[in-house]
Amino acid sequence: MMHTFIALVEDKPGVLTRVASLFRRLNVNIVSLTVGRSERIGVSRMTIVADASPTASHRIMASLYKLENVLDVDDVGQASCVVRELALIKVAATPKTRSHIFELAEVFRARIVDLAPESLMIEITGVESKIEGLLQVLNESEDRILEVSRTGRMVMRRGQHTSRVLDAMRVPATEANQAEEEDPDASTALMAEESGL
Amino acid sequence: MMHTFIALVEDKPGVLTRVASLFRRLNVNIVSLTVGRSERIGVSRMTIVADASPTASHRIMASLYKLENVLDVDDVGQASCVVRELALIKVAATPKTRSHIFELAEVFRARIVDLAPESLMIEITGVESKIEGLLQVLNESEDRILEVSRTGRMVMRRGQHTSRVLDAMRVPATEANQAEEEDPDASTALMAEESGL
Repeated sequence: MMHTFIALVEDKPGVLTRVASLFRRLNVNIVSLTVGRSERIGVSRMTIVADASPTASHRIMASLYKLENVLDVDDVGQASCVVRELALIKVAATPKTRSHIFELAEVFRARIVDLAPESLMIEITGVESKIEGLLQVLNESEDRILEVSRTGRMVMRRGQHTSRVLDAMRVPATEANQAEEEDPDASTALMAEESGL
Repeated sequence: MMHTFIALVEDKPGVLTRVASLFRRLNVNIVSLTVGRSERIGVSRMTIVADASPTASHRIMASLYKLENVLDVDDVGQASCVVRELALIKVAATPKTRSHIFELAEVFRARIVDLAPESLMIEITGVESKIEGLLQVLNESEDRILEVSRTGRMVMRRGQHTSRVLDAMRVPATEANQAEEEDPDASTALMAEESGL
């Protein structure tokens, strides 16, 4: 079963090694991983797709939390999310066969981002199945696919849900206290932690 | 100095750990890393951006080549490339303030991919500076950015250039021989290697 985790990590050397080694130790295969900057300076956001048994989610999350430099972990599970992947696809195309690919790109809402005498490059974003769809059509229509580069799955929850930890870090202590009556010290503790980063 | 490498690796457990550990050993900081499927089944494509001295490129490439499961490495360097990054940005917006963000999205050729009563989500692709540009405008116009997720840089060379190794693997031996007169045995050797993967 595929699990998707969002991890917020401090942007420090070795954090990627630690995360990758953890999955190796747990004997869980990482299907895709993307790392990029988040809304906060010094904090990176990872989307990790892992193939593990349905019950492994809790164990993986607990292990991730224990790692140095990991600030927050979210198991997306069945939550309502926007799922996106970016792909660049280079296809062999002569001036004669180009127009056919232009049409395909329009149907898939893809963009042509490079054009050379004998090839062109398509940029497409969407869920995995949409990208697979375009690749399949290109294969079936005997367009020769020269190169494919994909980012792997990136996920964000729909609606106003934000990362709890980062939110508490950013909101001034007074405001956060009003919002989180049940745990008035959490945001203050996080604010203190933040200055020590 | 930023170096960008494209590595083609076999999709086997532990390959990510090995690559991440290598950069750790070389004491080189990985700025961004994306891994996704390539045009060949069982082969993943990594784009690695690393911050290292201008002369470190050769050493990094040589070390990557030596790693198990690494099939090909390309240092993009100053070559002509298409550079793309995907970002999802969640912004706080009420029905009153939405239209302002719609306009911004249009200028940046971004897409609105989710709309909730108090927030919306923007999908944008482009070079890093374009994404930074949108984030800056959003910050300056006092739209509250709730969440940002970015894939990190993905790179593909312009024109018909393809990955040498994969190309030799895919093209039948006879065709490849015609194309690569100077090294008639390379493709045959690779074809043999392929069946042993």
